[in-house]
Amino acid sequence: MKVSLEDIRDAAVRIDPYIHRTPVFTSTSINKIAGCELFFKCENFQKVGAFKMRGAANAVMQLSEQQLTKGVATHSSGNHAAALACAARAKGIKAYIVMPKNAPSIKKKAVAGYGAEIIECEPTLASREATLERVVKETGATFIPPYNHEHVILGQATCALELFEQTEQLDVIMAPIGGGGLMSGTALTTRLFSPDTEIIGAEPAGADDAYRSLKAGHILPMDQPDTLADGLRTSLGSLTFPILQENLKRIITVSDVEIVKAMRLIWERMKIIIEPSCAVPLAAVLKETSSFENKRVGIILTGGNVDLENLPFGKYGD
Amino acid sequence: MKVSLEDIRDAAVRIDPYIHRTPVFTSTSINKIAGCELFFKCENFQKVGAFKMRGAANAVMQLSEQQLTKGVATHSSGNHAAALACAARAKGIKAYIVMPKNAPSIKKKAVAGYGAEIIECEPTLASREATLERVVKETGATFIPPYNHEHVILGQATCALELFEQTEQLDVIMAPIGGGGLMSGTALTTRLFSPDTEIIGAEPAGADDAYRSLKAGHILPMDQPDTLADGLRTSLGSLTFPILQENLKRIITVSDVEIVKAMRLIWERMKIIIEPSCAVPLAAVLKETSSFENKRVGIILTGGNVDLENLPFGKYGD
Repeated sequence: MKVSLEDIRDAAVRIDPYIHRTPVFTSTSINKIAGCELFFKCENFQKVGAFKMRGAANAVMQLSEQQLTKGVATHSSGNHAAALACAARAKGIKAYIVMPKNAPSIKKKAVAGYGAEIIECEPTLASREATLERVVKETGATFIPPYNHEHVILGQATCALELFEQTEQLDVIMAPIGGGGLMSGTALTTRLFSPDTEIIGAEPAGADDAYRSLKAGHILPMDQPDTLADGLRTSLGSLTFPILQENLKRIITVSDVEIVKAMRLIWERMKIIIEPSCAVPLAAVLKETSSFENKRVGIILTGGNVDLENLPFGKYGD
Repeated sequence: MKVSLEDIRDAAVRIDPYIHRTPVFTSTSINKIAGCELFFKCENFQKVGAFKMRGAANAVMQLSEQQLTKGVATHSSGNHAAALACAARAKGIKAYIVMPKNAPSIKKKAVAGYGAEIIECEPTLASREATLERVVKETGATFIPPYNHEHVILGQATCALELFEQTEQLDVIMAPIGGGGLMSGTALTTRLFSPDTEIIGAEPAGADDAYRSLKAGHILPMDQPDTLADGLRTSLGSLTFPILQENLKRIITVSDVEIVKAMRLIWERMKIIIEPSCAVPLAAVLKETSSFENKRVGIILTGGNVDLENLPFGKYGD
């Protein structure tokens, strides 16, 4: 994937009317605990509560007139589903979202709230893919995948661009890795905008496919993810893997206990709501404080959509 | 209590090095639900996680050299305890905090973390007052009460001053009422800075002493408060009652179910952590939407200190 800073800036201009420019928060007390200066890019305050709005908007806003008439489709039970539904509504087009029938009703409600049509499937990858294929065939809608798509990656790249504009020179930039869309976008922006900044990924130990893939030199899919960081259970894609391979200094993996501890710290000290997935980079910093000593570290807080009646606190020995 | 705008501005300058200038947040989706434009002053992001830091700092920073050598004391198990401890540490003086022995250990830890000395007492008002009296006698420390104190009220008044500076003309300004310190400070600032803005208080129905006191024309103490809004269980004081009597247009009371519903809305839509007490003004707006239709309403979100292992969601029919 060949990208220029101009491409990323174009994406930023394109999606500007549809997203929030989210703030960067700092916390003196967390800095003290971590032994470095942390700059948290608060995508939990983004529209639909997650950075996914950037990629979805960037993809939807580049559809042709012909494509627009048929709408968009995806399979997702997470933030990408809500983001695509929201972006489609903003453009006044149809969105078809394939969701497993056992998806939490709160997630279905959110997607339906944006006016999308939900098509239920069995909770297996095979059923998701088959159902999506049928929907695309029947409706002519354009499939917008959650991360393995150039426009989606470029949309996510705008997040780091804002962070660099909002913050003086960062020594390190970090993001969590699921399918690698955000991490890829972050890496592309960093290479072009701030080439001296180290790019470090963070992953749950229970879904460490990116860590293992980079080590192996080829994509190793995640078969049985076992982590509460539900946004990070997916495997890398054909577009995201090479970008990470080329640009990441390293990936740090952390346990679910470490994730909940970092999540609690952000909730308690910063008074903001973040998903478990967001806490992974901070958990990595706290695990390896010596690697970050006195550095200026940018961390993308990816989203804030949690089930308030099923929070992890007190359940992971934190 | 005679106060000029100059006095409030002086307080703001005095406490400036010890507090955060907190942001004002808005939420398109909550505005839509409420049918008005809401401006939330985020004192949950304040130092120690609550507006109480303003009053405590303003009181501590006006102690005489003689008083400073002896330190400060108070009885509180809530945000005022942490705020006074924090302000005392900032000034390098001693703080003695009388806390009931059954106070949550997390609150004791917070106060101890600011270097204050905790003196335990029985969980009764009589024991709290007797213990405080003894501590003051033995140490010579100056008692800084949580709200019925001119310097504390002027400190809290700086919060509304910031809100008016950060926001274009507000039609209404609202705060929750416990002892009335924040509401009094808010009323004083509003009268002087923005006299056309309506001042409306909000109270839990289970701790509606201010509502009843204003109706009766004299202070009616709160004997058996019954509300989850733990910051609002106290009764008005001799200084705060007359300020509210003179300046408040009205007080709206809301049930605990309404409070949790409003709290959930802020958590889910704004992704910020607020205490139940903070949600009371929004609950009032949602209860009486017709009174606020299309108005620009400022609401002070007072604090963000909650017990993450004992949240009210799903327990109040919300």
